[in-house]
Amino acid sequence: MEKTRENYLAWVRDAHAMEEQAVTMMTGMIGRLENYPTLRERLQQHVAETEQQADALKSILEGHETENSMLKDTIGMAMAKGQALSGLFVSDEIIKGLMASYTFEHMEIAAYRVLIKTAQKLGETEAERVFVKSLAQEQAMADFLADQLEPTTGAFIAREEADLTAKR
Amino acid sequence: MEKTRENYLAWVRDAHAMEEQAVTMMTGMIGRLENYPTLRERLQQHVAETEQQADALKSILEGHETENSMLKDTIGMAMAKGQALSGLFVSDEIIKGLMASYTFEHMEIAAYRVLIKTAQKLGETEAERVFVKSLAQEQAMADFLADQLEPTTGAFIAREEADLTAKR
Repeated sequence: MEKTRENYLAWVRDAHAMEEQAVTMMTGMIGRLENYPTLRERLQQHVAETEQQADALKSILEGHETENSMLKDTIGMAMAKGQALSGLFVSDEIIKGLMASYTFEHMEIAAYRVLIKTAQKLGETEAERVFVKSLAQEQAMADFLADQLEPTTGAFIAREEADLTAKR
Repeated sequence: MEKTRENYLAWVRDAHAMEEQAVTMMTGMIGRLENYPTLRERLQQHVAETEQQADALKSILEGHETENSMLKDTIGMAMAKGQALSGLFVSDEIIKGLMASYTFEHMEIAAYRVLIKTAQKLGETEAERVFVKSLAQEQAMADFLADQLEPTTGAFIAREEADLTAKR
């Protein structure tokens, strides 16, 4: 299972980069949000969870004593950068931010499901336990964001039509 | 509802760009896939659906006689490009491609849910009907891809360990 172990460690590294980018993206969004307190509060809570997830991934990597290789430029990074940039310009920032967060959560869900399956094949039971916990947190966050799509769109439209700041 | 109508048209344009990028991404993936026939077949079916979705969005735009403005560089484009590029290099292409497709489907789901809510507010009932149909197709594709995550990871690992081409 040498090749699988190699892939596994690469995927754990990718997941770590992804979680760090998630923190960057969410922190940027929280800093700009003004009029959507429910979303802001839940994002703050999830940043704390995400930092713990990133730490857990780092511990797993350190446990395998891999060299500190440069992290790949994942799709997640492109997304996080895109979102960070777009926040500066777009008039529908909250909608784009919500869509990007919802999308990003599903990348994280996919990553943990791949990691769980691989950890099972390798008998990495302790790591599997960590991934299962993180997956549950990502799923809960994805469900929350899913529930926000329609009400936030409605609130955005109502604020716009009332000439209130809608984008943040 | 003038501002809302403006946002609405911008979002329909974004969705059109997103669907075109989805076609690019899936076509690239289909062209490279060799050993995962179930996934390949379902992707081919979804490319046909996606082309119809893009056409439907174009018709809606044309119905509003908007000028042919340059489409925004959405996060979707960055993802599609990232995925198209990554396919040339990565040894775990099928896993990354599956994760990216699953993620992309959720961006599309979010986009259609925002569009449905907005079309309802604007009384655009015919467009709403189109979006509801596309949303159902995206959800079905997302469910299919979700079900593929563990078996494809398992198949990838098995092929790698048997020294068979695993990445495509």
